[in-house]
Amino acid sequence: MNVKKTLDFVDKNMPDLLKDLQTLIRQPSISAKNEGIEECAVLVSKILKKSGIKSEVLRLKKNVAPLVYGEVKSKKNPNKTLLFYNHYDVQPVEPFDLWDNKPFSGKIIGNKIYGRGASDDKGELITRIKAVESFLKTYGDVPCNIKFVIEGEEENGSEHIDQYLKKYKKKFSCDGVIWEFGYVDTKNRPVISLGMKGLLYVELETKESRIDAHSSLAVIIKNPAWRLINALRTLRNENGKILIKNWHDDVLPLSKNDLKIIKSEPFDTNEFKKEYGIKNFVNDKNEFEAKKALVSGVTCNIAGIVSGYTGKGSKTVLPSTAKVKIDFRLVPKMDPKKQVNRLKKHLKANGYGDITINVLNAEAAARTNSNEEIVKITCNSAKKIFGDYILNVSSAGTGPMYSFVNNLHVPCISIGTSYVFCRMHSPNEFAKIDLLSKTTKCFCVLLEEFSRSNSKN
Amino acid sequence: MNVKKTLDFVDKNMPDLLKDLQTLIRQPSISAKNEGIEECAVLVSKILKKSGIKSEVLRLKKNVAPLVYGEVKSKKNPNKTLLFYNHYDVQPVEPFDLWDNKPFSGKIIGNKIYGRGASDDKGELITRIKAVESFLKTYGDVPCNIKFVIEGEEENGSEHIDQYLKKYKKKFSCDGVIWEFGYVDTKNRPVISLGMKGLLYVELETKESRIDAHSSLAVIIKNPAWRLINALRTLRNENGKILIKNWHDDVLPLSKNDLKIIKSEPFDTNEFKKEYGIKNFVNDKNEFEAKKALVSGVTCNIAGIVSGYTGKGSKTVLPSTAKVKIDFRLVPKMDPKKQVNRLKKHLKANGYGDITINVLNAEAAARTNSNEEIVKITCNSAKKIFGDYILNVSSAGTGPMYSFVNNLHVPCISIGTSYVFCRMHSPNEFAKIDLLSKTTKCFCVLLEEFSRSNSKN
Repeated sequence: MNVKKTLDFVDKNMPDLLKDLQTLIRQPSISAKNEGIEECAVLVSKILKKSGIKSEVLRLKKNVAPLVYGEVKSKKNPNKTLLFYNHYDVQPVEPFDLWDNKPFSGKIIGNKIYGRGASDDKGELITRIKAVESFLKTYGDVPCNIKFVIEGEEENGSEHIDQYLKKYKKKFSCDGVIWEFGYVDTKNRPVISLGMKGLLYVELETKESRIDAHSSLAVIIKNPAWRLINALRTLRNENGKILIKNWHDDVLPLSKNDLKIIKSEPFDTNEFKKEYGIKNFVNDKNEFEAKKALVSGVTCNIAGIVSGYTGKGSKTVLPSTAKVKIDFRLVPKMDPKKQVNRLKKHLKANGYGDITINVLNAEAAARTNSNEEIVKITCNSAKKIFGDYILNVSSAGTGPMYSFVNNLHVPCISIGTSYVFCRMHSPNEFAKIDLLSKTTKCFCVLLEEFSRSNSKN
Repeated sequence: MNVKKTLDFVDKNMPDLLKDLQTLIRQPSISAKNEGIEECAVLVSKILKKSGIKSEVLRLKKNVAPLVYGEVKSKKNPNKTLLFYNHYDVQPVEPFDLWDNKPFSGKIIGNKIYGRGASDDKGELITRIKAVESFLKTYGDVPCNIKFVIEGEEENGSEHIDQYLKKYKKKFSCDGVIWEFGYVDTKNRPVISLGMKGLLYVELETKESRIDAHSSLAVIIKNPAWRLINALRTLRNENGKILIKNWHDDVLPLSKNDLKIIKSEPFDTNEFKKEYGIKNFVNDKNEFEAKKALVSGVTCNIAGIVSGYTGKGSKTVLPSTAKVKIDFRLVPKMDPKKQVNRLKKHLKANGYGDITINVLNAEAAARTNSNEEIVKITCNSAKKIFGDYILNVSSAGTGPMYSFVNNLHVPCISIGTSYVFCRMHSPNEFAKIDLLSKTTKCFCVLLEEFSRSNSKN
């Protein structure tokens, strides 16, 4: 099969890609609120079928987001299989008032298409579907077997992906996984990432009185917000170093090769600082330290905290409860379950054993060795379409990569396709239309290269 | 003038009192929403006039709630003047669905009259008006000059009462002020309070990045929630002691007499702990320490804190801002303006000079000396009608008492007249009809006793 022809098809097919992406964006699918999940799964399955991909909606049990499965068998090369991992769910849209257009508008302005999920991950998903469609519509065949695993809980911690993988191990068997995650930098270079960090996401809650009280009673009734703050201050020092006992015990140092890759990885410090409107990195890190931290730094981040009256003006209230959401990023070999126990032990030892810990997410980190053949293939495909690429030891973000590696025993690699400043998870998320086209083409090349490679699981 | 006769009049006049109170309740007057304020001011003035009290509606400027002024000159004793401070505005009625009857119904069921403002403060106001009316209708005269200052912004922070007092200083001149605040306890004892605490209510805000970021970036972008928490932890120690430099400089110790009063004040610790569902007071205070703290404790209370994602489930976000609302209760001699500057200086000295401070409320504390004759008079009146009373050095709450003391240079005292659990500020607010009658009688006695006293400003 001549890839050139499929690339031409991609160009002609762009209006259709944008229409399908708009349809996807306009279907809300907020996993954190179980909003539109079922509807979106059915919609994704329909779009797969429309593109010629056999699809079914897999279910684990009631009240668990369904998983959309897609499959095309290759007539020409039925012995090699590439699996695309994506997700159809999106982040919540708050704060509403910072959106210039409605969060689920799918509005196109110039080179951008706007809406929650435009990049993460509906935009990325559509490019993969359209790459496969290009082969099917051009040749009636694909270069290798292709599988799609599209989950609906990624933005909410992928709680059941491991169970899905265990249940459908055979169905999902493959020779390599292309991950959903990553980005294209400001110089148009896709970032090829070999790993993802782990994540432990907990909600801590402390309660004092039965009901909110008049704040004049603060002289005799304890304030749970103060107590929570006191507890939080035992977790890290002012420089961000985590003070929980044994927290770092299982962390491995970066290898020489990893450090070499990190060193060579470009990073535009000025551009980054400008985008986020910051003057300095945490602890005044320099560029190399920042890059190293992105690959291998562990964090204890307050993702949300709330207690009492938070509306306009003043209300003299003594709150009865206080809550905080914390996400700890983990690196390879840190076991989230072990880390939860360390946190529990720490709070207890510091006199905060009564604070409830609700684990909302626990995923281990994963990292693919840079010597795997799929790494070379992905880099080559990127080079052919984008002219350049960036190799990255591990993304700073988290995904359930560990579950795939652990259950399917195949290498896993992510190739970034969304613009680096596309406001993922933030108001006014968008995707760049030219990038959607390039990315689709890149996957055409990748499929062809993969079919000719030796990588066989 | 024989008080006995006026007390008989009160009994006969109860249907009229209840009718007037119903009329008042049925006129909404929510200052927070500027709902019915103008109409209610006119209505109150009309009711004053109907009772024989000269009245006018005073205005400061456009968009400021008018103040209703009332005055009766005494023929018999034109050299002594008592001023009643009340307010005609009420709290919002939300949540609607928790009201058994319409919020402004004025419905009478058994011994109770229901509706927003039934106690706070329309019920309290009507008893004072009717006490004056009793003298006027019985004797065509009153025991001393009487003035009414009835504001329309009390439930919204009394923003302009100080300006009114300054503008009408001469008009409002008097020898003593009877405050609007307080309650009758479950054993039918009115609480006579000699003061109110001050309040400094501020909102602190810290900002780091221009926009919310993905929490994976927490390795290099600072988290404003952590920064705010670090700043907050410099404000007080774990026991609640405020660590701001010079914060307590102007605080006077309680006098021996104050301590004696506090000791004798009844307080049902078990009932209180049951109501709020708490096991221990702050720092395991005993009953006496708790009572002392209610009178003279200063606090740094978190009334609200918010940053990042606070909805259901998890969102991996690195917030760009964090906000906290703090109310500091102040005691006499603490100047709110001075205290704000101390807070500012403290934050700056601790490296948090960039945190913005928004002052939402600043009122000084006020306390009347227990040796003032008006204290004895009020206690005597309460004893005569209720059989008993409770003396309290200062309420734990805050009101604009300082403005009266500071502008009029007279003692100020509050005598509680609403039932302690009358659901002030809550759904199904009511007033007890027998208490309305007793309270009116109590003010008859008080007026008579005051006219015979030596207290002359």
